[in-house]
Amino acid sequence: MPFPPPPADKTEIEEGAIFAPRFDEKGLITCVTLDASTGEVLMVAHMNDQALEATLTTGIAHYWSRSRGELWKKGETSGQIQRVKEMRADCDQDAIVLRVEVGGDGGACHTGRKSCFYRVVDPDGGLRITPDE
Amino acid sequence: MPFPPPPADKTEIEEGAIFAPRFDEKGLITCVTLDASTGEVLMVAHMNDQALEATLTTGIAHYWSRSRGELWKKGETSGQIQRVKEMRADCDQDAIVLRVEVGGDGGACHTGRKSCFYRVVDPDGGLRITPDE
Repeated sequence: MPFPPPPADKTEIEEGAIFAPRFDEKGLITCVTLDASTGEVLMVAHMNDQALEATLTTGIAHYWSRSRGELWKKGETSGQIQRVKEMRADCDQDAIVLRVEVGGDGGACHTGRKSCFYRVVDPDGGLRITPDE
Repeated sequence: MPFPPPPADKTEIEEGAIFAPRFDEKGLITCVTLDASTGEVLMVAHMNDQALEATLTTGIAHYWSRSRGELWKKGETSGQIQRVKEMRADCDQDAIVLRVEVGGDGGACHTGRKSCFYRVVDPDGGLRITPDE
C-alpha cells in the first residue's frame, strides 16, 4: 500500500498537498476517464491501490475489474491503451479524473463505441442511442 | 421503486431502450456531473432510486448524501441548483452523466471552487491546487 492513510483533518484532506486517496470499504476509488483532446467522458471505472499505483508509475491507465476480480490494464488486448495526460483528485479525495490519449481506434467502450455513455436517458425512462461523435 | 430491475440479458442492458439502472448493493449509482456549457467535470456523487427519480421528474439534480444519509437537493441552501439539460447512462447502466446549468454563483464544490477537481495529482503523489477557471 503505497498511499498514506487519509488525514483525520478535513482541511488537510481538502487543501493539503499530499495525495491520500480515500478508498471505500472494498478498497476502491471511482475514476472518471476523459478524452484529453475533446474532454468527452469516455468511461467510469474503479481503481484499487494497486491499479492507482500502476497508473501513476507507468502513465498508463490501470483499473480494477470488479467483474473479473483482477488488475485491468485497459487496452492490453484491444489496443485501446490510455496514456495519462493528467490526473485530478476531488475535494474529499474519493474520486479521480483522468485525461487520457487513447491508442488503437481511440475508443473505450467494449461495445465498440468511443464512449460508454452512448445513450440519453429521457425523462420518461426511455433510452436513446445517440450517434458516435 | 419506479425503475425496472436490470434485465438478465446483456444485450438488453447494453442496447435496450429501457432505463433499468443497476444500483449497487447499497442501492446507489455513480453520477458524474458536468457543466453543460463547458463540459467541465464539476463533481462525482451518488444517487439512490429516490434521488434518481426526483432528478428525472423535476429536472433538478438530486443526490443521496452518504455522509448525512439523506436525499440531497443540490443547491437548496447554497443556491447552486443544477438544472439538468441531459442525462446519459453507460453501457452497463451502473453510472450516469448529467449535463447541468448551475444556478447561484455557478459553482459546485463546497470549498467554494467551481469544480471539486481543483487539484492535479503528480506522479510523485503530490497534489497541486490549480487556479479556478
